[in-house]
Amino acid sequence: MSALDGLIEALRRLPGIGVKSASRMAFHMLQHDREGAQVLAQALQQAVSRIRHCSQCHTFTEDEVCATCRDAQRDRSKLCVVETPADQAAVERTSAFRGLYFVLMGKLSPLDGIGPKDIGLGKLFARATDGAVQEVILATNFTAEGEATAHVIAEALKQRGLKVTRLARGVPAGSELEYVDLGTIAHALVERRER
Amino acid sequence: MSALDGLIEALRRLPGIGVKSASRMAFHMLQHDREGAQVLAQALQQAVSRIRHCSQCHTFTEDEVCATCRDAQRDRSKLCVVETPADQAAVERTSAFRGLYFVLMGKLSPLDGIGPKDIGLGKLFARATDGAVQEVILATNFTAEGEATAHVIAEALKQRGLKVTRLARGVPAGSELEYVDLGTIAHALVERRER
Repeated sequence: MSALDGLIEALRRLPGIGVKSASRMAFHMLQHDREGAQVLAQALQQAVSRIRHCSQCHTFTEDEVCATCRDAQRDRSKLCVVETPADQAAVERTSAFRGLYFVLMGKLSPLDGIGPKDIGLGKLFARATDGAVQEVILATNFTAEGEATAHVIAEALKQRGLKVTRLARGVPAGSELEYVDLGTIAHALVERRER
Repeated sequence: MSALDGLIEALRRLPGIGVKSASRMAFHMLQHDREGAQVLAQALQQAVSRIRHCSQCHTFTEDEVCATCRDAQRDRSKLCVVETPADQAAVERTSAFRGLYFVLMGKLSPLDGIGPKDIGLGKLFARATDGAVQEVILATNFTAEGEATAHVIAEALKQRGLKVTRLARGVPAGSELEYVDLGTIAHALVERRER
């Protein structure tokens, strides 16, 4: 296999990249950005060798325990469960949560053969029952798979006597009812709050 | 900068990849395909160190002269000018051309500041006037930029006394007139053939 074909094959392992995109990327880098290709090669190697999972919350980190879990200012009685580091970042940006996280690094997806073991639920259960955690806030996505994942976790943790909550479903901030989908309005009605 | 941020930054240098796609790619590789990340790193380094331009036709090759230009079976009197190696591959797949190629590795694009020097037109003119070439077939794309590129090359080579032809414009094979755009039908009428 030529170096060019090898590069195109390797680029196709990126998610969402087919042979046309891979060819276009290879052409672009070889013709216009060879420095970028070298930077990317180095970044890949450094990431693979340095990045591992936080022993506490399972997110990506270069240390044994990530900076968030090490932060003495955080409330250790609340544990927020998210699917990915990107979801964790979204919650962090709100500045509305000062507890700790557990990052599943995936979601239950029986159709894709992803079961409880594949997303480290055992690790979550051990973490949630460490004595300090009093409330587990489920912040998995509001998709079918995210909801199923939240359901499985909730059932297991309630059996262990923990308080389990879920992010509220409802009308997004700043939205006009006319343009909100029916399911969302229905949930917002059912879960309406007194005030 | 952390190794993860470094990887996301590096992935953003790929064409068409923004910060969301780059994050998704980084997450996928670190979580599900670390071997793929290493394969890609190696493929990038090999490609950058091994791949250069054919001294004859300017396409990517790992040798001084590419396999097509070395092929003694090819008709050296015909030179087909294409924009990219992918275009060359498209022409090759037809098996309808047995001459040689010149790969511009780009196209004239004054709006992007890409002029005749940037796409090596000097090299093409030297190649086309080597004595062996009798006909230059312009197979640049039928876009505004490809047409402008073809026009500039045609004018320059005709001044040098060469026969210059352009791929025929017309109705695509297998298409129904009802669904062919007006410009294409108009061109096909103007360039109609007697039979």
